[in-house]
Amino acid sequence: MKKKVDEPDFEPIVTVTRAELVEEQIRAYLKKKKLKLGDPIPKETELAESLGVSRNVIREALSRFRMLGLIESRKKRGMVLTKPDIMNGLERVLDPNLLDRETLLDIFEMRLVLEMGLAELLFIKKTPKDVADLEKIVHKKSGQNSIKFNLEHEVEFHSRLYEITGNETLHRFQRLLLPIFQFVTDEEAHHKKPPRKGKVDHQQLVEIIKDGNPLSFRQGMYDHLEPHFEWISQRKK
Amino acid sequence: MKKKVDEPDFEPIVTVTRAELVEEQIRAYLKKKKLKLGDPIPKETELAESLGVSRNVIREALSRFRMLGLIESRKKRGMVLTKPDIMNGLERVLDPNLLDRETLLDIFEMRLVLEMGLAELLFIKKTPKDVADLEKIVHKKSGQNSIKFNLEHEVEFHSRLYEITGNETLHRFQRLLLPIFQFVTDEEAHHKKPPRKGKVDHQQLVEIIKDGNPLSFRQGMYDHLEPHFEWISQRKK
Repeated sequence: MKKKVDEPDFEPIVTVTRAELVEEQIRAYLKKKKLKLGDPIPKETELAESLGVSRNVIREALSRFRMLGLIESRKKRGMVLTKPDIMNGLERVLDPNLLDRETLLDIFEMRLVLEMGLAELLFIKKTPKDVADLEKIVHKKSGQNSIKFNLEHEVEFHSRLYEITGNETLHRFQRLLLPIFQFVTDEEAHHKKPPRKGKVDHQQLVEIIKDGNPLSFRQGMYDHLEPHFEWISQRKK
Repeated sequence: MKKKVDEPDFEPIVTVTRAELVEEQIRAYLKKKKLKLGDPIPKETELAESLGVSRNVIREALSRFRMLGLIESRKKRGMVLTKPDIMNGLERVLDPNLLDRETLLDIFEMRLVLEMGLAELLFIKKTPKDVADLEKIVHKKSGQNSIKFNLEHEVEFHSRLYEITGNETLHRFQRLLLPIFQFVTDEEAHHKKPPRKGKVDHQQLVEIIKDGNPLSFRQGMYDHLEPHFEWISQRKK
């Protein structure tokens, strides 16, 4: 959402903690030394001495790196740089209760964008097994109609689509967006019950994946998600 | 990328630090108490006492929350819950030097997915001013052809597209993915020089945004990005 606020005359003074300053310095050090995955980093005591701060402050800064998965303590080798789990930080903040409405709606839209953009990867990577699995998922659905089942089915089907891309980072990202998406969908449903369904269902999407092409899939996905896009258009006015 | 590795017989034992345990407990506390943005959280001393750990450990855990933008210290009010900057954690790890190849390629693909999925939001949100701005950007381009100018132009053009969506979170995410995208594109270029261009250029994309529809934009964007998709298809084999 675009913000249209007057520029304030004063910016509140942001206090930078010592741990933040240390974090920045360590980050700059990694860059300068061109350290790579697996490389050791200096010991706590060495860092404390070089930076002229207490070990507690160093520990606080290193704790941030550890949280992001950037470093790990290894027996006998001390701390080494590790492949970060890039979604780690995101995972810790994507909680509907901790976000404002604007951000929640942004995330809702992001999921729609991802879903609409999947077509090409999907058709490059799909295998007959993927299609068979999707068929199984929609087959399970027939007959069942409780709210709980519908929700689980929704999640299972769309997750399986991301899985087909073979892109673990993308799939993880989608899983993180799910609770937020659900939160906003509930709100939509609040406006008009029962929520309107798209004119293409999962069953039809599977048929398109089987026999169609990225273009027909894109059209099918649009028809599937169309009530959400309509909602966005209306909110804009 | 799908991993095909044998399941190991043993999982390495992961040492959980006291700060991590405290972080989890505080997180559970926020949930249980249903705390919202602006609500105060207990003082360091209180937390230390309730959890039976030293203040240093508490400080380490709180430092993580602060890094994610989840809490802030306010004068006279102590620490309060704040609207997190959800991309803060991601920003700290999206460095081509700190990621492995698999993740870099995943991120490369993610940007393609986003770009292909933008069409609907773009057409819902675009204004005459947006189109005029895009025209200015492509106009500047004509004639100029240095590598540095081309790169800046590339970034300016695509960033402006995200800006049109009015989705600050999405736009920020795209900016974070940029350096990674560049890193992989350089690698592509390494394979075959000069890198092949898509058959639709920015100028033509602007014309589509002006007079076309989401479907024709999607086709144009595909033709614009097609060399990248071709590269992905080839890598798959």
